[in-house]
Amino acid sequence: MEVRERIKALQNQMKEHNIDVYYVPTADNHQSEYVSDHFKTRVFLSGFTGSAGTLIVTAAMAGLWTDGRYFIQAERQLADSGITLFRMGEEGVLTELEFIQQQLPEKGTLAFDGKVVSTSFALQLEQLVQKKQGYLQYEQDLVQPIWENRPALSKNPVYFLDLKYSGESMMSKLNRVREQMKQANCDCHLLTSLDDIAWLLNIRGNDVACNPVVLSYCIVLMDEVHLYLDETKLNKEQRLELQQNHVVVHPYDAIYEDIKKWNTRILYDPNKVNYALYKNGKGEFVSQANPEVMMKAIKNETEVENLRLCHIKDGLAVTKFIYWLKHQIKEQSLSEWDATEYLQQCRKQNAHYLGDSFQAIGAYNANAAMMHYSASKASASMMEAKGFYLIDSGGQYYEGTTDITRTICLGEIPQEWKIHYTQVLRGVIGLSKAKFLYGCRGINLDILARGPLWNLGIDYKCGTGHGVGYLLNVHEAPNGFRWKIVPERNDSCVLEEGMVTTVEPGVYMEQSHGIRIENELLCQKREKNEYGQFMGFETLTMAPIDLDAIEPSLMTQDELDFLNEYHQRVYETLRPMLNEKERVWLKEATRKMTHAG
Amino acid sequence: MEVRERIKALQNQMKEHNIDVYYVPTADNHQSEYVSDHFKTRVFLSGFTGSAGTLIVTAAMAGLWTDGRYFIQAERQLADSGITLFRMGEEGVLTELEFIQQQLPEKGTLAFDGKVVSTSFALQLEQLVQKKQGYLQYEQDLVQPIWENRPALSKNPVYFLDLKYSGESMMSKLNRVREQMKQANCDCHLLTSLDDIAWLLNIRGNDVACNPVVLSYCIVLMDEVHLYLDETKLNKEQRLELQQNHVVVHPYDAIYEDIKKWNTRILYDPNKVNYALYKNGKGEFVSQANPEVMMKAIKNETEVENLRLCHIKDGLAVTKFIYWLKHQIKEQSLSEWDATEYLQQCRKQNAHYLGDSFQAIGAYNANAAMMHYSASKASASMMEAKGFYLIDSGGQYYEGTTDITRTICLGEIPQEWKIHYTQVLRGVIGLSKAKFLYGCRGINLDILARGPLWNLGIDYKCGTGHGVGYLLNVHEAPNGFRWKIVPERNDSCVLEEGMVTTVEPGVYMEQSHGIRIENELLCQKREKNEYGQFMGFETLTMAPIDLDAIEPSLMTQDELDFLNEYHQRVYETLRPMLNEKERVWLKEATRKMTHAG
Repeated sequence: MEVRERIKALQNQMKEHNIDVYYVPTADNHQSEYVSDHFKTRVFLSGFTGSAGTLIVTAAMAGLWTDGRYFIQAERQLADSGITLFRMGEEGVLTELEFIQQQLPEKGTLAFDGKVVSTSFALQLEQLVQKKQGYLQYEQDLVQPIWENRPALSKNPVYFLDLKYSGESMMSKLNRVREQMKQANCDCHLLTSLDDIAWLLNIRGNDVACNPVVLSYCIVLMDEVHLYLDETKLNKEQRLELQQNHVVVHPYDAIYEDIKKWNTRILYDPNKVNYALYKNGKGEFVSQANPEVMMKAIKNETEVENLRLCHIKDGLAVTKFIYWLKHQIKEQSLSEWDATEYLQQCRKQNAHYLGDSFQAIGAYNANAAMMHYSASKASASMMEAKGFYLIDSGGQYYEGTTDITRTICLGEIPQEWKIHYTQVLRGVIGLSKAKFLYGCRGINLDILARGPLWNLGIDYKCGTGHGVGYLLNVHEAPNGFRWKIVPERNDSCVLEEGMVTTVEPGVYMEQSHGIRIENELLCQKREKNEYGQFMGFETLTMAPIDLDAIEPSLMTQDELDFLNEYHQRVYETLRPMLNEKERVWLKEATRKMTHAG
Repeated sequence: MEVRERIKALQNQMKEHNIDVYYVPTADNHQSEYVSDHFKTRVFLSGFTGSAGTLIVTAAMAGLWTDGRYFIQAERQLADSGITLFRMGEEGVLTELEFIQQQLPEKGTLAFDGKVVSTSFALQLEQLVQKKQGYLQYEQDLVQPIWENRPALSKNPVYFLDLKYSGESMMSKLNRVREQMKQANCDCHLLTSLDDIAWLLNIRGNDVACNPVVLSYCIVLMDEVHLYLDETKLNKEQRLELQQNHVVVHPYDAIYEDIKKWNTRILYDPNKVNYALYKNGKGEFVSQANPEVMMKAIKNETEVENLRLCHIKDGLAVTKFIYWLKHQIKEQSLSEWDATEYLQQCRKQNAHYLGDSFQAIGAYNANAAMMHYSASKASASMMEAKGFYLIDSGGQYYEGTTDITRTICLGEIPQEWKIHYTQVLRGVIGLSKAKFLYGCRGINLDILARGPLWNLGIDYKCGTGHGVGYLLNVHEAPNGFRWKIVPERNDSCVLEEGMVTTVEPGVYMEQSHGIRIENELLCQKREKNEYGQFMGFETLTMAPIDLDAIEPSLMTQDELDFLNEYHQRVYETLRPMLNEKERVWLKEATRKMTHAG
């Protein structure tokens, strides 16, 4: 069935159920950013495979909303679909709500699957429908009947994270959460976000590609926890351990009935809990960010020590890969896919490597202008010994999650590309070496990374960086670097010691080239004095930055010093793990730079 | 009567009226930042003369709240008063509200003069009192009976600002305001902020020292305006002109009765309208920032052209002053006061000079560590041909308002002072040459000015800059540069073309020295492209920055280039207006700097 037919089938369903507007977000029952195949309803309907997007269908049309990272990809993938692309954030482009407002007739019916829409957004839709004196249907998934061979929910086993990796027991975490429940005067806490559950119970799984989470819901009480998941994922020992910690296990779907029992004050995050669950609840819902979010973001000492090791292993893989690519490309032609595959092979050499933390982006020249390009083996471009190969990738290890981008110079490049590359690097350095007073947020610091590109009249249409989980999601709130204040996005919190955030400015020139350099930064305390507590960053990422693409005369001495010190550290750290050829090459690749070169 | 006696007298009044806590803000009936002598109740009671501060008195004690600019000054002035200093913003220091919360007994009485407290703050106090089941008295000014020889309200005449200075007629402004009233579905707009009224009606006066405003209230209707002021301030022609514009004049105090008439939707800013007026109103009060605020902040083309001229005149006065001081100090000993007086003499040479825009701060060495130091002739320190003289001053002209700070090197200074001076200058340059996308706020850019000092582990306990009025208040919302998000302060709006904001980082080393360099920046459009509208700044201020205090090796080439270009412009602009000796000196004072000096 082609996209046009699928949309038509949905429109027929809509007609049957008397629905004027049908809303399809990218979400699972847990408001996950990345969803398992079972929940890829928007991809099924539209053919657009980017990680973010919303489809809205009326009798007459279908529209797809996505953000700047995906404009180019969406244009291509929607080309013959009949679906209209709405470029989010661009001047004059209707938001999803504005579009629904415009399209929903008076006394019309808006529908969606209430399990995949957050309570907060659904409440906005409720208001909109009320103003039109219309109707809201949220109790059925209209796509289910038309989706033949829909993938089933994952049955992958659960594993427990040992204390030497988590650094804190489930009980200790539960005590901290219960303290905050008390403060909010709640004796029940409804927790449905998968990474928060995984962190809280020190459990991991494999239910979403690259995200080691377990499809589950939690009801945390003062003396016990109710955990809802496919029980076949647990073995006997695991059940026993949970039992010992007063965690009672129930079937995954049972929560929709069970939630009706708790006629009390329920702490919940309306941006995370789905609307169907909220509507089933009988208690008083107390809206608050999940306490787990901030606790999880602040990595403890064990986690930080593990992360340092993890980044050495991961950086080693990337470094060996760069050595290989720089040499191989002179010998043979390689596809983007071949290179990405080889990098994965390098990561697999690492102890405790559990898989990639997201689908790697390996993109040559113009392909790299698509921020989240992904090539299949068949569609991958062939590369020559010139231009740029951008590789954004990461691994999952018991010691943590990594996310690193390097743009590798494969041979000759135009001078303009060098200038762009250097300004991107200056942005990375500017933010990495920031020293700032406690209380700063990402919005205060973003310009340190973005400024060098703004000076050229260039911008990247996304944030500068995001929080990273610990053997969890590669995108993790609430820390981040961005300049726009987006009230509904909780990703520009005060930067706390122990938070890990990426810095990844870039240049994206359609039809020409793409450049991104990405490191991970650990927030740390510096001196405290009469002015307050100063803060700074330690760069965790441990892989060389390509000096062949740099125009050093554009850099300040401070920036060169930072780069040279970083490269010195990379060389000294990795050299014992390299073979002689790699070592000699890395020494050269991390050589001291001056304004003269 | 000494401070202790005054506090005692107030406490007696409180006892008589059965009041437990009495609250004395720094405000007039219009929530002005600077108040006329009649309203200096807090100064009268406490002896603390800083421009910002709140006094709270209980039966047992009196506390004074002020911000970081005034900590040192307040410590000195309160030394023998028995009043406790509360350093706002420091760790563990109670806020005013927390203190009242703590001190007000159950069923106790909190009192204040409702005319000098904003509606928004009074509503918070109302809530606090309700929680204690207490009582609120707001209808009398308890200080009036104990303040002998209280200064009367000013009777200075009003003048009208010609179109060649204002650039927009009263009618045109009224039309724009009425458009926004319509959008808010209000046919009445209660306007009590003095600078907004002055801007709207193109009137100026002399009722607050250095602030050319007219003590007045306004009720703006769709077809007429009611203006409340001391009618003797207007001459016949002015009355006629107001009449022709449908502005009806009433006595100043008549508004408290008149407001009862408007039983309709009233647009008002609860942060500006006083509580007594709000309580008298019978209509539906619709809370919104005054539309005049944003309109006034965005200077029109006429104003911008005038401001450029104004800064040339003003910069000329400052430049002649610097020349004089640098030479005189070698010949004779001078006091801080002598120097400040001489600068005012220089300003008086300028056509259309109407007075200073605030009380100049002329501070030598350690005195300059007090951000808002002010010396009387008697208390002024004597200066020698060494160290720093900080002079922060500004003028009022028909062509606009200025605010400029220069720190002048009078001879030898320690190397550490040079380093501090250079980092302050680097901050000024970093922000001045920023290029950024439209949508940025002060909070996004502040680190460009503050970063060089944070790198040294130094901070200044205030914002980096504030908006400046046009022949109006030297501090004007809503634009500003600061890094902390302070929801109740509306001074970090999106930066719009035509806004004028100061950049004034500084170093304040108690007992040692103070450094500040302040320019005014005009926000302008740069190129617009696929990334959006880029913005930048033009430096309006036109006076040399002291090269004798610079350590050029600390500066980047970009920074030196910016400084050299600025100095070139200062020299070329001012040279025709200087005598030969001054010209020769300025050429040297604006010489091209390199890393070598």
